[in-house]
Amino acid sequence: MNLNWKKLSERLVWDGYRKVLNRTFELPSGERHSFEINATPDVACVLALTESQNVILVRQYRPGPERVLLEMPGGMVDAGESPEVAAARELLEETGYVGDVRVAGSCFSGAYTTRTKYACVATNCRKVGEQRLGRDEFIEVVELPLAEFRQHLRSGQLTDVEVGYLGLDYLKLL
Amino acid sequence: MNLNWKKLSERLVWDGYRKVLNRTFELPSGERHSFEINATPDVACVLALTESQNVILVRQYRPGPERVLLEMPGGMVDAGESPEVAAARELLEETGYVGDVRVAGSCFSGAYTTRTKYACVATNCRKVGEQRLGRDEFIEVVELPLAEFRQHLRSGQLTDVEVGYLGLDYLKLL
Repeated sequence: MNLNWKKLSERLVWDGYRKVLNRTFELPSGERHSFEINATPDVACVLALTESQNVILVRQYRPGPERVLLEMPGGMVDAGESPEVAAARELLEETGYVGDVRVAGSCFSGAYTTRTKYACVATNCRKVGEQRLGRDEFIEVVELPLAEFRQHLRSGQLTDVEVGYLGLDYLKLL
Repeated sequence: MNLNWKKLSERLVWDGYRKVLNRTFELPSGERHSFEINATPDVACVLALTESQNVILVRQYRPGPERVLLEMPGGMVDAGESPEVAAARELLEETGYVGDVRVAGSCFSGAYTTRTKYACVATNCRKVGEQRLGRDEFIEVVELPLAEFRQHLRSGQLTDVEVGYLGLDYLKLL
């Protein structure tokens, strides 16, 4: 079965802080169909473990879900930056910790978004300084024992569940 | 530490097939700040297993990543519909299979989206009919042995990685 679509055109229809694209495709049937796509920058998120296997998390308000969530550190991958450098930078800025950061994997954020999400792990993490937060960041650092973190992942009360599981899988800690 | 933000106002700034909200908050510092939020409907996605522990997947083109991906069945939760009914409906429409569908968990799709994503599992699945696809759906049904599905999840070459892990975790199949 031919499953491939052919992109015919693309234009930016909302150009605010978020971006929306209108993409027109020729479908396998020969019909043309347009779809709106969220053009979202790539992000890197990190499962960060101390030597004693505590997971370093960041409690913060999230304006999409409209609640305070216990999240993994992470943020946008800047232009020209590698995912592991972005993850290490966000970890340091949000928590004051450094560690040995590696890319454990990546995945697609959604069927109608352009975003790739990089799942990083950081091992042997230790606190080396204070947080360096933006004016719109209010973050409480929390160290959670690994068993409690697994429970937290199962609860789904965070936004980067796949990064947690991909990181644990990579480190053989599932 | 006070982490709570107070929402002061909200307005729709892009009202296409995708929706973008502008939300203004009073931050813990007392400053006001506006954020753009993707207003995205809730979705239900399903880890569907046959009696012989094959995972039922749907190979299809995804217009955000712009490639053919081997996905879990799923889609939007319609108004008034429960997540398990939505998951069972999508499973039947996309694959022609039925099974015992339960909600394994849920999570937030992102910090800047309103979406809740429901992770469902379907056990004892069997084929009862043909696919019933929309005019913009071109889907090949694939049964993958469980061990290969775990590898597929680790590869990140799909969009609902968290649903796969949450489902396996719920069924104690990690």
